[in-house]
Amino acid sequence: MAAVNFTLKKECPETGARAGILHTPHGDIPTPVFMPVGTQATVKTMTPDELREIGAKMILSNTYHLYLRPGHKLIEEAGGLHSFMNWDGGILTDSGGFQVFSLAPLRKISEEGVTFRSHIDGSEHFLSPEKAIEIQEALGSDIAMTFDECVVYPAERNYVEESVARTTRWAERCLKKHTRKGQALFAIVQGGMYSDLRKKSASKLVAMDFPGYAVGGLSVGEPPQLMYNILEETVPLLPHHKPRYLMGVGTADYLIEGVKRGIDMFDCVLPTRIARNGTVLTKHGTLTVRNASFARDFRPLEEGCRCYTCRNYTRAYIRHLLKVNEILGHRLTTYHNLHFLITFMKRIRESILEGSFKSFYREFHAIYRQKKED
Amino acid sequence: MAAVNFTLKKECPETGARAGILHTPHGDIPTPVFMPVGTQATVKTMTPDELREIGAKMILSNTYHLYLRPGHKLIEEAGGLHSFMNWDGGILTDSGGFQVFSLAPLRKISEEGVTFRSHIDGSEHFLSPEKAIEIQEALGSDIAMTFDECVVYPAERNYVEESVARTTRWAERCLKKHTRKGQALFAIVQGGMYSDLRKKSASKLVAMDFPGYAVGGLSVGEPPQLMYNILEETVPLLPHHKPRYLMGVGTADYLIEGVKRGIDMFDCVLPTRIARNGTVLTKHGTLTVRNASFARDFRPLEEGCRCYTCRNYTRAYIRHLLKVNEILGHRLTTYHNLHFLITFMKRIRESILEGSFKSFYREFHAIYRQKKED
Repeated sequence: MAAVNFTLKKECPETGARAGILHTPHGDIPTPVFMPVGTQATVKTMTPDELREIGAKMILSNTYHLYLRPGHKLIEEAGGLHSFMNWDGGILTDSGGFQVFSLAPLRKISEEGVTFRSHIDGSEHFLSPEKAIEIQEALGSDIAMTFDECVVYPAERNYVEESVARTTRWAERCLKKHTRKGQALFAIVQGGMYSDLRKKSASKLVAMDFPGYAVGGLSVGEPPQLMYNILEETVPLLPHHKPRYLMGVGTADYLIEGVKRGIDMFDCVLPTRIARNGTVLTKHGTLTVRNASFARDFRPLEEGCRCYTCRNYTRAYIRHLLKVNEILGHRLTTYHNLHFLITFMKRIRESILEGSFKSFYREFHAIYRQKKED
Repeated sequence: MAAVNFTLKKECPETGARAGILHTPHGDIPTPVFMPVGTQATVKTMTPDELREIGAKMILSNTYHLYLRPGHKLIEEAGGLHSFMNWDGGILTDSGGFQVFSLAPLRKISEEGVTFRSHIDGSEHFLSPEKAIEIQEALGSDIAMTFDECVVYPAERNYVEESVARTTRWAERCLKKHTRKGQALFAIVQGGMYSDLRKKSASKLVAMDFPGYAVGGLSVGEPPQLMYNILEETVPLLPHHKPRYLMGVGTADYLIEGVKRGIDMFDCVLPTRIARNGTVLTKHGTLTVRNASFARDFRPLEEGCRCYTCRNYTRAYIRHLLKVNEILGHRLTTYHNLHFLITFMKRIRESILEGSFKSFYREFHAIYRQKKED
């Protein structure tokens, strides 16, 4: 199996936006790319065939969840995660760090790793840099992530400083442990909202020469402008020729702002989660189709959209399905939302390749109405 | 739109089995046919495209549920149920009788009809023969059913006698009220487990000359042999050249026994309901894939099955999905179960046309292991 590497195809001369190709053992992934999240070895409600149909090339899956159920050993026995879930596209696995750190007060941090209790049955487990790598190697993802702490906003400088130092030491241990051929290990820059800590984190991780870098610890409750500022300071610290991944970001405005600042990869549960709550993404912003005002609206979710949902079903029908809690409702909104974001990223990429990203960006903002959902 | 009518193609000389075609405004339905149930204007977890893919030609939908949510007026505005749910195959609607009678003690029966409280919000409603027809005409199904009482087993003779007489009077009122062109109105023979009451019910309804007849009030808790006996007594009372429909029956053994006794149409929620509980249908009987014994079973649900689920996923993966309550698990088991029953009916039909039904029947019973699944 080929290793993961990255080719830059074109850069926008006026912004940081760039188009590239991420070569993986499971196909070439055109970037910038949005990766749908398949937490438990499935992108909620979707088949792998439907993911292919909407143009998804790479998904994210969660080490923490798969470690607990069904267990990484079982997935290894099945021939790895691709084979287990019947998905032959790219897979990136997170390290489990984000989940176990969110388990407070059910977890205890030490230099060695994190002791935590399962959110399912309360059983005690231990996750360390080495264990996170062992699990991800068993899963056989194309891209594995280092074990890190994602600090929420706001956080005291002292805490962040200590945390970043530990995350850096853990990255080194991950690198040392990692041996799986064909699987790339990406590191995660942390540092909260402190520029100098971001700088420190980036410079140490870059020195370790990982094949790709994520910017973690953003979109954790901070105001959008602060996130953009940190991004503008952090991205230039990363190697130009390597892929850059902004974790946990998945609304159209965040995506285009990330791309503008030089990000190549994104993932987020938001499009699939809000879909199940009856909210859909459109070029005009979000639309809560569950609302009573759509009961007799016989138009598609988004006029002009060519996705399966919009070609075949009305807002009125989808609203009915959601109101009576029918699975098909969740399927149709999820399908549309993922199709929307993936098509959006495809268009962004085309505009970069054509040299028209700047005008694409302006046109987007001319009609997109930002709205705070939950 | 053409009216509904029925052509008999071939009869088994040794049993009551027969193959025919039910002509409807939404296509020709080869019989015997199993109709998946789409209670709330959707066959749970499935798209109409998937229904077509597995060969479903006709589905059943529920008047009671659609009347409450989203309301038959809204569906009429949408252009009828076919258009609302994007299904261009056949639709049979029940009358709502079965549901409102099950609402005891939330319902009150009079000669006029049934006053009941909604299971959703407790609001009071009234369903009568005329109202049931009005709703079904608004829904625009291909086949509507008369408003009846389905008496559960066991029931006192006196109660059944009164109930059947009322159901017969109601059938007459339905017939009088029904005017929709292209929609056929089928009557329902009741009479519980009392042969003479079945006879009385059938003879009065047959005299009213409906285009099709259902046998209701079976598979309501009685032993299988009793059901077969009643069926053997009732079917010969129905017109030979009209379609016969056994309501609420949907396991492979019940289906083949029904066909053997001259039934052309079936419906049941069982295949879709047990699917969501992790039980699948196979030619050997049911298999509870949710069980721990399948955790590391990397075979398909049913060896040799050509359905989408069995071609792509293992028992281990499906069990995982069901254990962690992922929608895809429900989708895959539902898909398989409906594919199984529809393919089974297709094979039964072929055997009738080829004159080999009797040996098909024997082979089926040689390997099918009956198991009581609730």
